[in-house]
Amino acid sequence: MEILQIRTHDREAMVDITNELRKLIHANGWSDGALLLYCPHTTGAVTVNEGADPDVVRDILVNMRKLVPHTGDYHHAEGNSDAHIKSSMFGCEQMVIVEGGTIQLGTWQKIYFCEFDGPRSRKLWVKWLEA
Amino acid sequence: MEILQIRTHDREAMVDITNELRKLIHANGWSDGALLLYCPHTTGAVTVNEGADPDVVRDILVNMRKLVPHTGDYHHAEGNSDAHIKSSMFGCEQMVIVEGGTIQLGTWQKIYFCEFDGPRSRKLWVKWLEA
Amino acid sequence: MEILQIRTHDREAMVDITNELRKLIHANGWSDGALLLYCPHTTGAVTVNEGADPDVVRDILVNMRKLVPHTGDYHHAEGNSDAHIKSSMFGCEQMVIVEGGTIQLGTWQKIYFCEFDGPRSRKLWVKWLEA
Repeated sequence: MEILQIRTHDREAMVDITNELRKLIHANGWSDGALLLYCPHTTGAVTVNEGADPDVVRDILVNMRKLVPHTGDYHHAEGNSDAHIKSSMFGCEQMVIVEGGTIQLGTWQKIYFCEFDGPRSRKLWVKWLEA
Repeated sequence: MEILQIRTHDREAMVDITNELRKLIHANGWSDGALLLYCPHTTGAVTVNEGADPDVVRDILVNMRKLVPHTGDYHHAEGNSDAHIKSSMFGCEQMVIVEGGTIQLGTWQKIYFCEFDGPRSRKLWVKWLEA
Repeated sequence: MEILQIRTHDREAMVDITNELRKLIHANGWSDGALLLYCPHTTGAVTVNEGADPDVVRDILVNMRKLVPHTGDYHHAEGNSDAHIKSSMFGCEQMVIVEGGTIQLGTWQKIYFCEFDGPRSRKLWVKWLEA
């Protein structure tokens, strides 16, 4: 697998990793298959969503915080149970299609690494699956 | 990849695409592997759920609307932030197993294309991954 | 595909299946690729989350029950619409990376089979995808 390094700066963040993934595909000469994007951290996730208006990311993070508040009926002593819950709701992995050496994305789509208990230095694992 | 065309008729919809996928597998002679079902639209998703009782789809859509309301604390000016949030909660892609040229589904499972900001004319991308 | 048998003992449960998957990989001699973990039941899911402190699983299940209550505005007569909704929120499938014959997991990650309408005898389908 290949590994991307990601730095987040707030407690909750969605970091656009689309260009880093494009460079990785080019560097490895991957052409026809799929990328398995895997977050090895239990307070993180990977998702695809709108990338044109930064307010979409803001709206996602603010409203997920309302749905799953930072404090609440939690027994886990680290104070980040909300982040674990969001991780399972968004999912720690994402598959994307690659054809002709290019990630196939919809017009408005960007790929985001999500962190719900930052700021952190994190890794994203990238596994190439040949078609 | 292959592309399915999907038409939705309400703001929120889950369209059963199982039979269209079966035809696609047959037409391509795919036998042993997996389908990567990918929605290139940022207000859509792909999911698998019960297909016997239409009330299950109704209950899913009604209660997701209650969890993530159409209006609320949203800055994105297009009025569809709820749909973007639901897209990341359900996920824009789904993997399904194919063996013996047949999609492997549980007894009650159907595959649904989800749209949370319709009605729309949409596409589903289908990538074959050989086992 | 290979099939794991899983027994749950409560209405909602997350069962750690990491070791059973390790045995399956060893028994099949799988080395470099990915596992497609697929739950064929429409009230179940597969997720990856923290495995060190059992309170994390407790916090996830208790707070998902608060988000999507057992009783509510449901038309489906079987009384398990909450479980169907949670199944689509967590997702019925999960991809994990395998390299050197070993599942690649983050330090604190375990793989969980989720059941939201148990107790049940369930199956998990495991499909090997070669890299």
